[in-house]
Amino acid sequence: MKKTELLYEGKAKKVFKTDDENLLIVSYKDDATAFNGVKKGQIQEKGSINNRVSNYLMGLLEKEDIPTHIVEEVNDRETIVKKVEIVPLEVIVRNIAAGSLSKRLGLEEGTKLDKTVLEYCYKNDDLGDPMVNDYHIYSLSLATKEELELISSMSFKINNILSKYFASINIELIDFKIEFGRTSDGDIILADEISPDTCRFWDKTTGEKLDKDRFRRDLGNVEGAYQEILKRTLGNN
Amino acid sequence: MKKTELLYEGKAKKVFKTDDENLLIVSYKDDATAFNGVKKGQIQEKGSINNRVSNYLMGLLEKEDIPTHIVEEVNDRETIVKKVEIVPLEVIVRNIAAGSLSKRLGLEEGTKLDKTVLEYCYKNDDLGDPMVNDYHIYSLSLATKEELELISSMSFKINNILSKYFASINIELIDFKIEFGRTSDGDIILADEISPDTCRFWDKTTGEKLDKDRFRRDLGNVEGAYQEILKRTLGNN
Ligand SMILES: Nc1ncnc2c1ncn2[C@@H]1O[C@H](COP(=O)(O)OP(=O)(O)OP(=O)(O)O)[C@@H](O)[C@H]1O
Ligand SMILES: Nc1ncnc2c1ncn2[C@@H]1O[C@H](COP(=O)(O)OP(=O)(O)OP(=O)(O)O)[C@@H](O)[C@H]1O
Ligand SMILES: [Mg+2]
Ligand SMILES: [Mg+2]
Repeated sequence: MKKTELLYEGKAKKVFKTDDENLLIVSYKDDATAFNGVKKGQIQEKGSINNRVSNYLMGLLEKEDIPTHIVEEVNDRETIVKKVEIVPLEVIVRNIAAGSLSKRLGLEEGTKLDKTVLEYCYKNDDLGDPMVNDYHIYSLSLATKEELELISSMSFKINNILSKYFASINIELIDFKIEFGRTSDGDIILADEISPDTCRFWDKTTGEKLDKDRFRRDLGNVEGAYQEILKRTLGNN
Repeated sequence: MKKTELLYEGKAKKVFKTDDENLLIVSYKDDATAFNGVKKGQIQEKGSINNRVSNYLMGLLEKEDIPTHIVEEVNDRETIVKKVEIVPLEVIVRNIAAGSLSKRLGLEEGTKLDKTVLEYCYKNDDLGDPMVNDYHIYSLSLATKEELELISSMSFKINNILSKYFASINIELIDFKIEFGRTSDGDIILADEISPDTCRFWDKTTGEKLDKDRFRRDLGNVEGAYQEILKRTLGNN
């Protein structure tokens, strides 16, 4: 499988076409951005860590019957994935209040939510990824009712699987963002990535943040946090 | 029925206790505010117009089996209402894109929405009334699932009744904000007001705005718009 033209360069990844029109190669970068691209930097080894961590987590999900876009890891930074049409929604799953939810609703960071909270943001950089509800989604034809029901039930299931898994490595899964896509067959599958860039991970014992908040908030030891997640997940694999 | 102590003074109304602990008297003011109280002014006769228009519209809704808080109009500005515990949600019903929806989702004002859009905002001035979804509402215990289902079905029904009614007086009902409350019996009823302060009304022929947007946006002839709504609704009643 060979990369052909660059299809898309995002803030965290490059996406290449391949000689198979149904497959893409995703190449993870060390570039880090926050606050919709306003804060910029680099995190050493991030690309390679996120690629491997994301593939490992999606592998766990596949075993529990969650279909994902993963086809094959090519090397430390690159993975072959099924090409999908991304559903233009950032699906945010929250177990504990943090970040924008804490700010918007006045809930102290760390407040346990009685029930898992699901949020949708319309993936649109010009509009600043505004939060939307089901009615907005239908009105803008971002997804059908059937698709949205599938997306929400898959998201809750993913949360259950990942929360349990992270608990087993002494990490509290605070919240995470996922993206879904439509395959050429019209199926909805999990796409994009699941990594310290897209999740909040807190050490269960010390409460230490092991995710991109270290970069966003200048907490120091950013690389150490990413390395720690690699170590706890893939271990000596 | 006599007003006793002032229970609450809001931006548009004063609410008084009465000698019946289950009843309140609402007194409508001419004060106008916009942008969460940042812009302030007066609209001549607004209090008396909104009181009478709101009571008239709630009367129409009562006839169609929507329970409301209205008990009796006392005078041009004042009405006896059932005391409720307000569900801390602003329920926004939208038929056509305008205002904050247009801005947030990049839809030109006047764009017909394929399906009616319902939005909830958490009534909390300190937080700026943030938009919330069902999960936030349950998490913050703002309403139960049963209550929210009732609120949404009543809101759609209210929209159908009012849209049809306003069409009959050559007005397009663009959007509106309503509030619900819990009675001492635990029933959910429509409360607060329905008026040019809380709705967007566009003349069907000319497109002229006949609502508070004339004040918000300095469009002139603010009083004329309120008078026109009074005339078209109550006519010579
Ligand atoms: N299997 C896939 N097929 C097609 N596109 C994908 C797939 N998986 C992820 N993508 C998309 O590829 C891009 C990945 O790049 P990156 O994460 O760097 O983007 P980004 O800077 O976050 O920007 P965006 O706002 O587009 O998500 C995203 O737009 C993502 O939605
Ligand atoms: N039947 C009722 N029983 C109790 N409170 C009511 C009833 N109807 C309306 N209210 C409340 O009375 C107040 C009316 O005042 P007004 O509309 O001026 O408030 P406001 O400035 O909009 O402020 P708020 O943010 O509290 O709505 C509102 O808080 C409203 O929710
Ligand atoms: Mg991305
Ligand atoms: Mg009010």
